[in-house]
Amino acid sequence: MSNNKVVLYIAMSLDGYIAKPDGSVDWLYDIEGDGGDNGYSKFYNTVGTVVMGRLTYEEVLALADEFPYAERPCYVLSRSQQVEAPHVTFTNEPLETLIPGLRDQSKGDVWLVGGGQLVQAFLEKKLLDEVCIAMIPKVLGEGIPLFPEGTVPSSFRLIGMEQMGQIVSLSYEVLQ
Amino acid sequence: MSNNKVVLYIAMSLDGYIAKPDGSVDWLYDIEGDGGDNGYSKFYNTVGTVVMGRLTYEEVLALADEFPYAERPCYVLSRSQQVEAPHVTFTNEPLETLIPGLRDQSKGDVWLVGGGQLVQAFLEKKLLDEVCIAMIPKVLGEGIPLFPEGTVPSSFRLIGMEQMGQIVSLSYEVLQ
Repeated sequence: MSNNKVVLYIAMSLDGYIAKPDGSVDWLYDIEGDGGDNGYSKFYNTVGTVVMGRLTYEEVLALADEFPYAERPCYVLSRSQQVEAPHVTFTNEPLETLIPGLRDQSKGDVWLVGGGQLVQAFLEKKLLDEVCIAMIPKVLGEGIPLFPEGTVPSSFRLIGMEQMGQIVSLSYEVLQ
Repeated sequence: MSNNKVVLYIAMSLDGYIAKPDGSVDWLYDIEGDGGDNGYSKFYNTVGTVVMGRLTYEEVLALADEFPYAERPCYVLSRSQQVEAPHVTFTNEPLETLIPGLRDQSKGDVWLVGGGQLVQAFLEKKLLDEVCIAMIPKVLGEGIPLFPEGTVPSSFRLIGMEQMGQIVSLSYEVLQ
């Protein structure tokens, strides 16, 4: 057993979306932050392992010139596709064994990058320890929800809040 | 012209719901707050006029032994029903004339109590000045959304944040 946690760290619109319907996150970029990286480096330094769903992985690839998590073990969770790709390991191992295994081996916390389907599955299987949401002061009106309808009812305990310009970061422990 | 504002002041789950599917808000009551009324009296003292939709009105009636806004002018907005009821005035006047009129006459701010359909209409018609959301540390999984899908995309400016126990109150100016 390690002391590592599994942490969802993500930005969300006020109406609960993490991306526009096409997966894009361009609406994040004109928000006035703290003038720096809005706490990202500080968080990323605590991360030992990165996990994300396939759609999120594809959005990350589309956004960045270089894969941004290349220097961390990074797992792409996909039921259907198991491909070879640089910097990442595709896996369809069941979450119940995969995530505790990664958490124990990891040299730091396990970051769940997204998206909504994985969040739902992690909450249902009680695999999520903390949720850190950057509240973006916008209503999108449509998009990909962080907590899709049908997510298992869950309670959280507030463990931190921080203002970064127009962004408010809310940190919660997931109560099991 | 008055200096009164039209303010949405409401509690929302982390997944964006203001009530369970049946309209109930019992999930609000076991949250640890600030030990007092979580800023409600302070807010209510700024309110001159109360407006809400018919479904919200019916939920308020179902919840309270006494109508909680009896000492303020209170308008229930309903397209279909125009009934006589104690403490409130039903109206189907178009929002575009009703709300500016109420704002100008009001002895204080106009409080939009809810629900989601009115929020959508107020944002679309640019009738909302401020949004004050009490973030409740729960995921409900289903319910009545504060910002239903199809709400007009909107941007806000953070004007305040406050922790009240497990609740975080976020206040925004609506950018027009």
